[in-house]
Amino acid sequence: MSRLWNFSAGPAALPLPVLERAQRELLDWNGSGASVMEQSHRGKRFIAMAEQVEADLRELMGIPADYAVLFEQGGATQHFAQIPMNLAAEGDSADYIVTGHWSEKAANEAAPYVRVNVAASSKAYDYLRMPARDSWQLDPTAAYVHIATNETIHGVEFHDVPDVGDVPLVADMSSDILSGPVEVSRYGLIYAGAQKNIGPSGLVLMIVRRDLLARPGRKMAKIFRYAEHATHDSMLNTPNTWGWYLAGLTFQWLKDNGGLGAMAERNRQKAELLYATIDGSGGFYRNPIDVPVRSRMNVPFTLHDSALDAAFLQESEAAGLLALKGHKALGGMRASLYNAVPVEAVQALVAFMHDFSRRHG
Amino acid sequence: MSRLWNFSAGPAALPLPVLERAQRELLDWNGSGASVMEQSHRGKRFIAMAEQVEADLRELMGIPADYAVLFEQGGATQHFAQIPMNLAAEGDSADYIVTGHWSEKAANEAAPYVRVNVAASSKAYDYLRMPARDSWQLDPTAAYVHIATNETIHGVEFHDVPDVGDVPLVADMSSDILSGPVEVSRYGLIYAGAQKNIGPSGLVLMIVRRDLLARPGRKMAKIFRYAEHATHDSMLNTPNTWGWYLAGLTFQWLKDNGGLGAMAERNRQKAELLYATIDGSGGFYRNPIDVPVRSRMNVPFTLHDSALDAAFLQESEAAGLLALKGHKALGGMRASLYNAVPVEAVQALVAFMHDFSRRHG
Repeated sequence: MSRLWNFSAGPAALPLPVLERAQRELLDWNGSGASVMEQSHRGKRFIAMAEQVEADLRELMGIPADYAVLFEQGGATQHFAQIPMNLAAEGDSADYIVTGHWSEKAANEAAPYVRVNVAASSKAYDYLRMPARDSWQLDPTAAYVHIATNETIHGVEFHDVPDVGDVPLVADMSSDILSGPVEVSRYGLIYAGAQKNIGPSGLVLMIVRRDLLARPGRKMAKIFRYAEHATHDSMLNTPNTWGWYLAGLTFQWLKDNGGLGAMAERNRQKAELLYATIDGSGGFYRNPIDVPVRSRMNVPFTLHDSALDAAFLQESEAAGLLALKGHKALGGMRASLYNAVPVEAVQALVAFMHDFSRRHG
Repeated sequence: MSRLWNFSAGPAALPLPVLERAQRELLDWNGSGASVMEQSHRGKRFIAMAEQVEADLRELMGIPADYAVLFEQGGATQHFAQIPMNLAAEGDSADYIVTGHWSEKAANEAAPYVRVNVAASSKAYDYLRMPARDSWQLDPTAAYVHIATNETIHGVEFHDVPDVGDVPLVADMSSDILSGPVEVSRYGLIYAGAQKNIGPSGLVLMIVRRDLLARPGRKMAKIFRYAEHATHDSMLNTPNTWGWYLAGLTFQWLKDNGGLGAMAERNRQKAELLYATIDGSGGFYRNPIDVPVRSRMNVPFTLHDSALDAAFLQESEAAGLLALKGHKALGGMRASLYNAVPVEAVQALVAFMHDFSRRHG
């Protein structure tokens, strides 16, 4: 076994103790004589596990009782569409705050189901900063306001909860959920693809205020209706049982490691170390993002000379540092520093970066 | 490690060699230094694997080149809705052949998106037999004809491909795909939730004739459009990478074990052994399904006295035979005999059944 440091933007690194436990019990889970993947989701063992997973998440995030927790499928992208199907009636509008690739895509996928009002956008600034809060053109009659709390490609992140008045705030937290404490009651709906900070891909976690489930939404099949999923404890049809199980192992790992407060501190250290290396490189490495909104999770950076990119990627991989290639939209490099990436990985990365700049500077 | 014989209707038993291999390479897949769950789906390693998985499936099933293969999410239930969204235009009708719980549900979930014509139904016969072929009220202008080739709860199965003329035949094969050879060219679209004969839950396999992808369907978000998924090789958004990988291991296992012809013969033996035990029990065990349409995959049976049910379940579990409890809609027992259930498991089951009937007869 030779595990390397994995900076993948997603599907991303999982905590090693989670993988080791999943490996140990892959053939015989919980004394059942079968794998967790071979269990009926309606069996006693699986139901008991599912309840524990939800309880652990509620404890970690401090989720109030008037919020339902759902385990969905389809990736966050499917829910870009399904959220307006559920929260908006025919003719309604919704406000979208566009701060990067993913929030823009959320607005586009919503368009068949709701009148999309781009209430603020930093696209004109190449998403290098957030749109000034006082420039947001919020509509108090909007069905909801949508944000992406962190943008994996552009590397910008909300570090506070914007005040949007009485309109429910809907947040795609795919790439920073569980990276620190969240004031859940400030949101109407939180959702997250699992493949960054939760577990494997193919699972979407959703936390939704119950009054929003009473909205009639659009005419649609039952399977698209969140209220039906809530009523059936996310077992309206067969869920992604492996993803649910792995999410549960991750939640236990978070609890065993001090919870979200400790995680926030660890993530702060990791991000500071990398940004300090970039900013202190005398221009060899560059991150162009407005400093107060830099992402703790995804750090895009460029080399002062893109002719060095290929060497950087080749040598970093040889040094056991995986998946540092930047998104094709921006080029350059990107290091994703999700919860499962330990401080040691970032230390190894910055050591390599120092060495590389010394040799190629 | 203590593996028991698992007769779960789904999520169901997986082939032991598949699980063992997944366990071996869980922490370090393919020499990558990371788990298969921690790989970008857009990385070279994952793409190469995905292409091999599709090639293996095409070889196993003999899928013609004018069919696309998609790896979807949401369970078959989501596609009960998504199929009419894609294949039917506003105002179109579609023919549904209702032969049990699942085909009835498919018709219900389709209703918001297409005029559902129940062209034939065996509901009046409690689904104990198939509707006579000459009673089907097929509409030659229908957008498609929908069948479920096997009904997991009611235990009836099509053993041939119905002739529906030039209208595309759409088949939910969730519970009998890969159980034997299939003449793909007779179908317009085949789909299957993975959790019976393919892999873990959370993955849906779809095989669709490419001309059907050109249908405009309904106004909808891109993420719901099969043509978009086909264009993007099922990576329009992050797919269920673990499910895809496990499906690939299962396809390799099928190839290593003689392919679908050998599987059909094995499944025939298993089903014959169990039905012969039931039919030869002098009425102690009963399966009420019309013999020619009995399912090879799911065998529901009752005991002559339901007061014995609890003892049967308790003793069978103690004998290492898992998940024999029947669906709540029918009561009694059910043994699911998917590909991954070996002949030895069925031999153990019938030995137990003989013993139980002798002791309680």
